[in-house]
Amino acid sequence: MQNGLVISLDGMGGDRAPHIVVEGASLARRKYPQAKFIIFGDEQKIGPLIKKHPGLEAVMELRHTPDRVTSEDKPSAALRSGRNSSMRLAIDAVGNGEAHCVVSAGNTGALMAMAKFVLKALPGITRPAIATYMPTKIAGQGVVMLDLGANVECSPKNLLEFATLGGVFSREIMKVAEPRIGLLNVGSEQMKGHETVKGAAELLDAATHLPGKYIGFVEGDDICSGTVDVVVTDGFTGNIVLKAIEGTAKLIGSLAKQTVLSSWLAKMGTVLSLPGIALALPAFISLKKRLDPRFYNGASFMGLKGLCIKSHGGTDAIGFANAIGVAAEMSLIQFNKKVAEELENMGIGSNQTDSPPLEDEISA
Amino acid sequence: MQNGLVISLDGMGGDRAPHIVVEGASLARRKYPQAKFIIFGDEQKIGPLIKKHPGLEAVMELRHTPDRVTSEDKPSAALRSGRNSSMRLAIDAVGNGEAHCVVSAGNTGALMAMAKFVLKALPGITRPAIATYMPTKIAGQGVVMLDLGANVECSPKNLLEFATLGGVFSREIMKVAEPRIGLLNVGSEQMKGHETVKGAAELLDAATHLPGKYIGFVEGDDICSGTVDVVVTDGFTGNIVLKAIEGTAKLIGSLAKQTVLSSWLAKMGTVLSLPGIALALPAFISLKKRLDPRFYNGASFMGLKGLCIKSHGGTDAIGFANAIGVAAEMSLIQFNKKVAEELENMGIGSNQTDSPPLEDEISA
Repeated sequence: MQNGLVISLDGMGGDRAPHIVVEGASLARRKYPQAKFIIFGDEQKIGPLIKKHPGLEAVMELRHTPDRVTSEDKPSAALRSGRNSSMRLAIDAVGNGEAHCVVSAGNTGALMAMAKFVLKALPGITRPAIATYMPTKIAGQGVVMLDLGANVECSPKNLLEFATLGGVFSREIMKVAEPRIGLLNVGSEQMKGHETVKGAAELLDAATHLPGKYIGFVEGDDICSGTVDVVVTDGFTGNIVLKAIEGTAKLIGSLAKQTVLSSWLAKMGTVLSLPGIALALPAFISLKKRLDPRFYNGASFMGLKGLCIKSHGGTDAIGFANAIGVAAEMSLIQFNKKVAEELENMGIGSNQTDSPPLEDEISA
Repeated sequence: MQNGLVISLDGMGGDRAPHIVVEGASLARRKYPQAKFIIFGDEQKIGPLIKKHPGLEAVMELRHTPDRVTSEDKPSAALRSGRNSSMRLAIDAVGNGEAHCVVSAGNTGALMAMAKFVLKALPGITRPAIATYMPTKIAGQGVVMLDLGANVECSPKNLLEFATLGGVFSREIMKVAEPRIGLLNVGSEQMKGHETVKGAAELLDAATHLPGKYIGFVEGDDICSGTVDVVVTDGFTGNIVLKAIEGTAKLIGSLAKQTVLSSWLAKMGTVLSLPGIALALPAFISLKKRLDPRFYNGASFMGLKGLCIKSHGGTDAIGFANAIGVAAEMSLIQFNKKVAEELENMGIGSNQTDSPPLEDEISA
C-alpha cells in the first residue's frame, strides 16, 4: 500500500453519482490535503468532472469500468454478476492493499455482501456490523449505535463484539476517554428483556479490558439523551430505531414548516411576519445545521479486515465529503489495528467462529 | 353492570396522584357528561379533592383503601401482596362487572400483570398487547402501534392477533374506514427480516376478513409518515422504538430551545429579539400542541376481557383526562365485542392457546 492516505471511491454509487462523489472528494481535500483517491466508474462521465476541480486530477486516479450496481440489484445478484462493477472494484482496491478504505453511496445490501466477501471478518469478530453516529442533547457530544441492519438476529457474543467495535470508534474517532457502553433493552432492570440481551449483559459484565465502561441496559429514549456513548443492539432493532429517529426528525421538521407557514404567513399577513422570520432565521439555520444529516453521514461497516464506509444514497457533496472524512479518520488512526489490540486484550482475538461462515448469509 | 359509562380509577397511581386523577375526571366530564366514576385510594387525600370540583361528588364514588402500588414495586410482588391496593381494586371493579373500564397512571408492569391475572385474555387472543396512537406527518391522521412491551418475544400468530386488535382500534376509535396494517421490518422486500416477521407476513397475507388491509412490511421511518394506520411489531422493538421517538422529539425540542435562546437572546440582545419571539410564539404553541404528548396519552392493554388504559405516570390533569377519553371511547363502541366479532370472522375466535398460560409470564 502507498504511504499516507489512499481512499477508494465507488464513482457510480448513489442517486446523484458521479457528481457528488467527485465534488465530495474535492471538498474533503480541504481537511485531508494528504489524501489520494482512486475512483472507479464511467470515464466519459467522471473524467470531465475531475477536470472541473483545480488540483484534483493530480491526486485522483480514474479507472474505467462500464458496470455498476443499481439500487434495485439484490445483494446475491450483485455479488455474482457485479465483479466488474465500480462498487466491487473499489472494494477490491482495499482488499488488494492499494487503498486504505473505500467509500460508496450505492446499494447498502450489495456493498455489505461484497465487502464481507472480499474483505472477510477480522480475527475474533464473528459478525461484522454497521455503525453510525448521531447527535445527542448535549452540545458537541455524539453517540455511536450498532448494529444497524447487518445482522437481523444476533447472539450474545455478537453483541459483545459490537460493544468492542463501538467502544474503539467512540474512543479513537469521537475522542471519548472512557466510552459509556449501553445495551439497548426495554427497561434498565436486570430481569428485563429476552434471553439474547440478558446473555449479552452477562458477557459484558464479565468482560475485562473492554474499550470503555459497560453501564448496563439503556432504553430507547437514552439514545439521544447524552447518557451513553455507545448503544449496542441487534440489527433488526437498530435498523428500525435509526429509521424511526430519522422519521421523527423529518416529521417535526415538516410540522414546524407547516405550522410556521400557516400561522405567520396566513394569520398575520406576509408583511407583518417578515421581521419575525428574519429574526428567527439564524436560530432555525443553526438548529438545522446541528441536526443536518449530512454532518452525520458515513456509516461504517465494522469488523472487516478492510475499512468500508457507506454514504447515504441521496446525500450531496457535503454529505459525501463527510463520509470520506469518516473513512479518513478511521484509516489515519488505524481503526482495525486498534480493534485487534482490544480483542487481544479481551482474550477473544483468535476465536473465529460461533456463527456460520459469512458467505452463507448472502442467500437472498 | 350499570347502564351507561362507568369508569374505574386508580386514585393513587402516578407521580402526581391523586390530584391529576380527580381533576382529569372532572375535565373528562365535559366531553362525557354521562360518565360515572369509582375511584379507589386514600379517602383522606381524595375526598377533599372531589369536593373541590362542583358536581363531581354526585358522579364519583370513593372507595377507601390505604394500600397502593409504588413505581418501584416488581410486578410479581405487586400481584402477590397488592390485593388491596388502589390499582388492584380498580381492576377488580372491571373484572366483577361494576365498571366498563379502568384507568391508571401507576406502575406499568404491575398494572399489566394484575390486569392479565384478573381480566384474562379474550378467546382467540394468546397474548394481550399494549397499544398507543401517535401523530403523523398528515394533519389529523394518527397511527396505532402495538405491541409496546407486553411481550418481548412474539410468535407469528401473536403478531396476527395484534394486527386484528390494532385494526379494530383504528377503524372504530380513529374512524379509518379501511385501516392500512403494516408489519415493522428492516426493509419492505419479502426476503427481509427474521423468521418471526416472515411467518407473520405469511399469516397476514393469507388472512381473510382482517379489520383493514395488510399492506406488507413497513420500516421505521414509515411509522410517522402517514403511509400506514396500524404498525404491528413485537414488544421488544415496539417499546424501544416508541421511546426512541419520544426521545428524539425531546431532543429536538431541547435543541430548539437552546438554539433560540442562544441566537435570539444572546446574539441579538433581549430587546431586539422580543418582537421575533412574540411573532414566533403562536407558531411554536401550535406546533407544541400538535406534538403534545398529553393529547396522545392513554395506552390500551388490548386483548383482555376487560378494558384497561395506562396513562403516562408523569402526566397532568389534561393528559389524564385524555386517557379517560380513550377508555370512554373504547367502552362506548364496545371494543371487545368488535374484536370478538372480527376474531370470529377470521376463524380464530375460539382457539385459545399456542403460548404458555398468561400467569407464567409473571415470574420476575
